[in-house]
Amino acid sequence: MQIEIICVGNELLIGKTLNTNAQWLARRVTSLGASVRRITVVGDDVDEIASAVREALGRKPRFIITTGGLGPTFDDKTLEGIAKALNRSLMLNDKALKMVKEKYEEYAKAGRMDSAELTPHRVKMAMLPEGAEPLPNPVGTAPGVRLDVNGAVIISLPGVPVEMETIFEESVVPLLKKETGDLMFFEASLHVDNIMESTLAPLIDLVMRDNPYVYIKSHPKGEERKPHIELHFSTTAKDSRVAKDRLGKAIMQLSELIKEKGGKVKTFKT
Amino acid sequence: MQIEIICVGNELLIGKTLNTNAQWLARRVTSLGASVRRITVVGDDVDEIASAVREALGRKPRFIITTGGLGPTFDDKTLEGIAKALNRSLMLNDKALKMVKEKYEEYAKAGRMDSAELTPHRVKMAMLPEGAEPLPNPVGTAPGVRLDVNGAVIISLPGVPVEMETIFEESVVPLLKKETGDLMFFEASLHVDNIMESTLAPLIDLVMRDNPYVYIKSHPKGEERKPHIELHFSTTAKDSRVAKDRLGKAIMQLSELIKEKGGKVKTFKT
Repeated sequence: MQIEIICVGNELLIGKTLNTNAQWLARRVTSLGASVRRITVVGDDVDEIASAVREALGRKPRFIITTGGLGPTFDDKTLEGIAKALNRSLMLNDKALKMVKEKYEEYAKAGRMDSAELTPHRVKMAMLPEGAEPLPNPVGTAPGVRLDVNGAVIISLPGVPVEMETIFEESVVPLLKKETGDLMFFEASLHVDNIMESTLAPLIDLVMRDNPYVYIKSHPKGEERKPHIELHFSTTAKDSRVAKDRLGKAIMQLSELIKEKGGKVKTFKT
Repeated sequence: MQIEIICVGNELLIGKTLNTNAQWLARRVTSLGASVRRITVVGDDVDEIASAVREALGRKPRFIITTGGLGPTFDDKTLEGIAKALNRSLMLNDKALKMVKEKYEEYAKAGRMDSAELTPHRVKMAMLPEGAEPLPNPVGTAPGVRLDVNGAVIISLPGVPVEMETIFEESVVPLLKKETGDLMFFEASLHVDNIMESTLAPLIDLVMRDNPYVYIKSHPKGEERKPHIELHFSTTAKDSRVAKDRLGKAIMQLSELIKEKGGKVKTFKT
């Protein structure tokens, strides 16, 4: 089950903000047995967002998850971009308006603001693409958004990490689980010293040929003077014993080969 | 001057690795007066890399910078992907081979390996797309790569951060500076409390209308119970006094408006 992530925000393109949202989503989606095919980062620009969404839809993922650009300011343009990609209008969504209204009334009651008035900038957060459904945001004002279109589900989440994570856990995880069933992602790492990546390369080739369901990737970590490599093993399976057996077999085989070449297996981590 | 960044690596798509390379490059490129239009992350797959490169070329950026996938292992496929995007072959590049060879001889002399033998996995790092030039890697074995194609320059850098950064500083910064001249990026932040983002939104609109060269973006930072917002001001200019005057004027105007609404300006940072 393939997923694409689209992150919206000039702050990502100028390097002001580290894209921890993409990592969080990628990790979470992967752990649920789905697979992230592409992550795209665009700025706060309707045409850029629209073209990223259109291109992603063209690759036929089951889900497209966007982050950022749902708030009240002029440069929160994600929903406008999605609407443009689909040739739909933005329309005031009653359910979304009710969510926004209740939030501001709650804040006003708690004494956090002068007024719960629904200013144009607040109403903006309830303007959704035609056919979309709002997803409750228990920790902020802008609702998330779900839009089903030609076999794909577009999910829009806010950029504030805690809001993104909360809406994902509450409203998106159940959708994903329905599709991936009991599939899970398993991983383990081996840290090795005293062997260069170019010496490891043919050993990895051999072990991956012998273990077709295990993916092995080497990550050089040390400095040039002192090579240190992390070997990351991963597999996806429904049964955790099957997965662990697979990883264990590949790890044992590669460890032996590394020792034969004079390398030192230092630590093993799951 | 527009730049696209393409990051290659399954570890980014499974969320194992936080994409600090993209942030580092985006920040560095922005500080040199150029502008990052899009960041794309794809896996270690020739077709995915090729389609990302082809699509990026279609948007006519001046530079495309790729990170990752230049090493000796089976899944280092960036150059194969670029070659495929351009319908070129991978060919053994003599200059690159010399760089790789000298590295391993140096390592062997320093007693780090048994042999400096040029195994197929090592030679692989010198297989470049037709017409490409290697860029020296002073801190690792895989050279960077430069390829000029139809008005765009494709730069490929390794994924190991220190190698990526070193090749960028030594071989790419001079190229970028030639194009951006003395343009520089300037920024400042204002931290404000006691005002909600939806109340700030119309104030930002007003100040941006009055200050057409200043871009202002609000970043909600606090929790829901205690709103705290960072306002980020930025501008690009050749003259640092002009830039600072612009930022100062916009910051003063917005600060006054925030105070009128009962907000508290806490700190100011450049």
